Order: sequence, then C-alpha cells, then structure tokens
Amino acid sequence: MSNRPARVQVTEVGTRDGFQAEPKFIPTETKVRIINDLVAAGVPRLEYSSFMSPRAVPQLADSAEVLQGVDRRSTMMGLIANAKGARRGVDAGVDELVVVISASESHNRKNVNRSVDESLDGFEEVALIAADASVPVHGAIATAFGCPFEGDVPFEQIGYIAERFEKLGFHGIGLGDTTGMATPPLVTGLCRYLRDRFPEMPVALHFHNTRGIGLCNVMAGLDEGIDKFESSIGGLGGCPFAPGATGNICTEDLVYLLHEMDIETGIDLDRLCEVARYVEDVVDHRLPGQVMKAGTRARLHALDEARTATG
Amino acid sequence: MSNRPARVQVTEVGTRDGFQAEPKFIPTETKVRIINDLVAAGVPRLEYSSFMSPRAVPQLADSAEVLQGVDRRSTMMGLIANAKGARRGVDAGVDELVVVISASESHNRKNVNRSVDESLDGFEEVALIAADASVPVHGAIATAFGCPFEGDVPFEQIGYIAERFEKLGFHGIGLGDTTGMATPPLVTGLCRYLRDRFPEMPVALHFHNTRGIGLCNVMAGLDEGIDKFESSIGGLGGCPFAPGATGNICTEDLVYLLHEMDIETGIDLDRLCEVARYVEDVVDHRLPGQVMKAGTRARLHALDEARTATG
Repeated sequence: MSNRPARVQVTEVGTRDGFQAEPKFIPTETKVRIINDLVAAGVPRLEYSSFMSPRAVPQLADSAEVLQGVDRRSTMMGLIANAKGARRGVDAGVDELVVVISASESHNRKNVNRSVDESLDGFEEVALIAADASVPVHGAIATAFGCPFEGDVPFEQIGYIAERFEKLGFHGIGLGDTTGMATPPLVTGLCRYLRDRFPEMPVALHFHNTRGIGLCNVMAGLDEGIDKFESSIGGLGGCPFAPGATGNICTEDLVYLLHEMDIETGIDLDRLCEVARYVEDVVDHRLPGQVMKAGTRARLHALDEARTATG
Repeated sequence: MSNRPARVQVTEVGTRDGFQAEPKFIPTETKVRIINDLVAAGVPRLEYSSFMSPRAVPQLADSAEVLQGVDRRSTMMGLIANAKGARRGVDAGVDELVVVISASESHNRKNVNRSVDESLDGFEEVALIAADASVPVHGAIATAFGCPFEGDVPFEQIGYIAERFEKLGFHGIGLGDTTGMATPPLVTGLCRYLRDRFPEMPVALHFHNTRGIGLCNVMAGLDEGIDKFESSIGGLGGCPFAPGATGNICTEDLVYLLHEMDIETGIDLDRLCEVARYVEDVVDHRLPGQVMKAGTRARLHALDEARTATG
C-alpha cells in the first residue's frame, strides 16, 4: 500500500471511446460543450476524439472541427492508428497523439487490417510526423490483458511492443483492457514486468468494467504505484461482445474511489456528475455510472424519503 | 497482501434481500428451485428468507414453507429482528438465525421502530430462544459504514453493539453497508478496530455496490484477512434512495474476482451464472451482474463475432 500515489492523473476517453460506439452522430456543438464541461470540472487530459478514417468511424469525422471549439487549458489528445491519421491530427492542432496497436495479432488485424509488425513499422512515420511538429506521442496497447480471440497475451509481447515504443521516442505507454479481461493479479504482474524492463517509461492503465472488476484493477494498479488512469464519463462505451455488459470504467466512479482513498485528482466530483447526467440525456440511454445516480456518500437523506431497508 | 485468505465463505442473500424488494411475489416453488440451484452450484450458506412480520414483508411470508422444500446440505439462515421472529424461525427449523440491528438510531427506528438499546434488550430473549433450540445466532449490523440519514457512524458505536453481541453469545457479526457508504479506508479501519477489540469474533462483510466500489471494498476486506462475504445472485436488490443505483454486490462477480485472485470458494461459477440468468428471467428485469452477461475472461470469441473496437 505504501506504493500508492498521492495524486492521480485522470484521462477522459468518453468523447472518443464512447461516442464512436453510439448509434447516432453526436452534433459537433454538443461534443464541444461536453468537452468544455469536462475541462471546467478539472479533467486535465482528454482523448477527446480520433483521426481514424471518417469512413471507418463516421461518428468522429468532425474531430478537427471539435478541436476549434474546445477550451485548450486541458491536454487534447487525438487517437490515430497510422501516419495518415497522425498527419490529420497534427494539422488539426492536437496537443498529443495517441497511437493504438493491439497486442494480439488477430485483434490488430481485425481492428486495422495489419499485422502487429506492420503496424509498428508504420509507427516510424508517425514518430517522424510527430517529432517534426513537436507533438508528443502516447503509445496505447489494446488487448494488453488478454485477447477476446486468442486468450492470454504473454507479458513478453507487451514488452516487445513497449521496446519499440521506447525506441520510437513515445513518451509513455497505455495498457488497454479492451474487452475487460484484466484481473488484479494480471495487473500486478504486468506492471511489475514493465517497471523492471522499462523503469523510465510512464505507464497509464485503461480498464473496462465488462466483468464488474474494473475498479478492483485500478486498486491493484495503485498498489503498484501507477498514477495514470483512463476512464469514460458515465461509463460511456460498450463491450463489443456482450450486449448489456458495460465498457470503460466510469470517470465519476473512479474519481469518487480515488478521493475516498485520499488521492487527489484536481477534479470537482459534483461538476463531473452533472456532466455525466447531461451526457446520459444526450445519448438518450441509461449509462452504467453509479455515483451520478446515488450521489457521493456525503449525500444524506431526509427520514421520510426512505423505503424500509433491512439489509 | 499477505493477510489475504486462501479460501472465502460466500453467503448468498439474494432470495431474502433481493426478493423482498421485488414488486411481485415470487412463487414459493420458484424460490425453492433457485435456492436449490444455488446449493447445487456449491453456495455453502444462504440467508434464504426472513421471519419478519408477513405484513411488513409480504414477499417473504412463505419462509417456513420454502424451508420445507430446500436442499439442506447448505446452511439455511433466516433473518429476524426480534423474539417473535426468532420463535418463528426456530419453529420452522432454520440452521441459523440472523438478527439485524442498525448501528444508527434513526435508521433502526425507521426500520424496526425501536431505539438501538431497545433492539439490543430485545435480543436477550432472542438469545434464549436460540440457545434453547441450539440454533446459532449471527448478529448483523446495518448501516455499519454510514447512515443515509446521519452520515458517519463512529467505530465505537459498532464496538458497543459488537460487545453486546459477544455477551449474548452470538457466534459472529456481519457488517452491513446498507446504502453503499463503505469505502476501502473505512473497511480497513473498521476491520482493524474490531480485530483489536474482539480478536475472537468472526466478522463477515456485506457490501452494496450503490456507488460502484462494492468489490473494491471486498479487496480492502481481503487485505485485512476477512474470509466471509455476503452477496446477492445477479446483484438482486436495490438501493432504497437512488432509482437505478444497484444494491448488493453480485455473487457471480464476487466469485469471479475471488477465483481470479486464486481464492477458493467451492462454488462452480458457470452454474452460478446460469442461476443468475434464470433469476433475471424470474424477476423480469435487468440485473446488474456483469459476469453472467459477458462470461468469464476464459470465454473466447470467433473472429467474425466482433464489431470493431479500438479502445
């Protein structure tokens, strides 16, 4: 427990990871409003949109336009998968690029129609484009805790990719639990493996709550001293395999947990919950976030509000 | 981490805590089937029903009848709040009585219309009835981690009740997080406080997932060596204050977490998930359990099953 950080940097991914999965296109001005509300609530970093092909991800085709409208006090990151995306992102003026690759061959092929090595080779050009524009690159590794097609992913495969990222000059790596296969012992093991091999490389963790233990994995990460977590407002975003199963861990619930553990985030939780409720209105379906519904534990009730509860 | 137990005893409370909150009466034979399916899945203990006044809790008015039909390999516990309930429970033939009191005055009054001391005084008779029938009594303390009307509950108040329980010869205490106000530091603190004052008293933890961190609280309990947890199949049961907020932590998700942490439960998780899905059909509304929807992490998918996922 002594490893636990005193402060955690939360990166919001909902307006990218969540909105791309929504059936309807969220209007550009609504995206801008939500992002600005998140900035106003104190969220320091946002993977705010992507620069994937607009044909592949039409819901985020307005990423350059969105960037024109948002409050740049917080770091605005754009997700990309190749050099073409890097160029679009840099041209749009992102603060950082997030380049994503899947650790498993079958998932990477499914996602971007390339082998892992083909993706990594393509990142050379991404690194050049980014360096040329002085834009830092964050390397995200999807299916880092397991692949829904192949099962376990060896730590060595993550190490192989991380080593390439380090050589490419990426300034940090993110471990994505794309389909919610992480468990506390896996988190502990992979964090220790990476710390041993790449002691200087900052590691961020991105968990999904597909199997209900997303925040347990955060606890395991905190115990390893990890101080960077990614999450999604309201728990936006789904699991691509299990209808009704949740996707990303929820930002408000994460921040509630961190604050209750006396870990600072710089985020105003009440304002964050307001944003979550607004996002629920916008997407017009129930989101999995709990704290936005129940309030924090500080929210007391009048006696006559209660049904009887014996548990 | 070295305190973590190698084995955990899971107590299922869904057919009591969950069914009492359902708007419609679950038929007796359906209750029996669900309980027997849980026993067949290896659940060792069930707070299977209550012996509260049938007028107050009509959904559980058939508790004596249910007991006639169930497989007695597992321990069948009946919830009570006073001597009248104790007598009904003993007459019905329960294996154990669970007597409940709220740690906070206002919640206890709301729940059973008595002060804490009036409830405790009444437990003298409960203890006599139980001793006479050689039925062990488990003492449950509701709102142990906070009261929705009063806020924080001092550890000393829990200590006061636990001391009375010890004198009454109760064989263990349960700490109920009735409205989901527990946090990892509170769990750590209260477990240590009780271990210092009552080193011989077994402690069980009963968390709600109202604010999304129920299983984080389990992790905190495990780190304190707690090896008894209560949960509800499918996450049955609601929060009395927040519409849409979940109630009890979910048994399948708890068992999934424990198994992934290499902690034995003696429960067959696949069978447990089948029961959860059946219960969802019975209550005819969505339950919060995640593992029953997504499957365990061992469940792999065919490549053509997937939508694209970039996270």
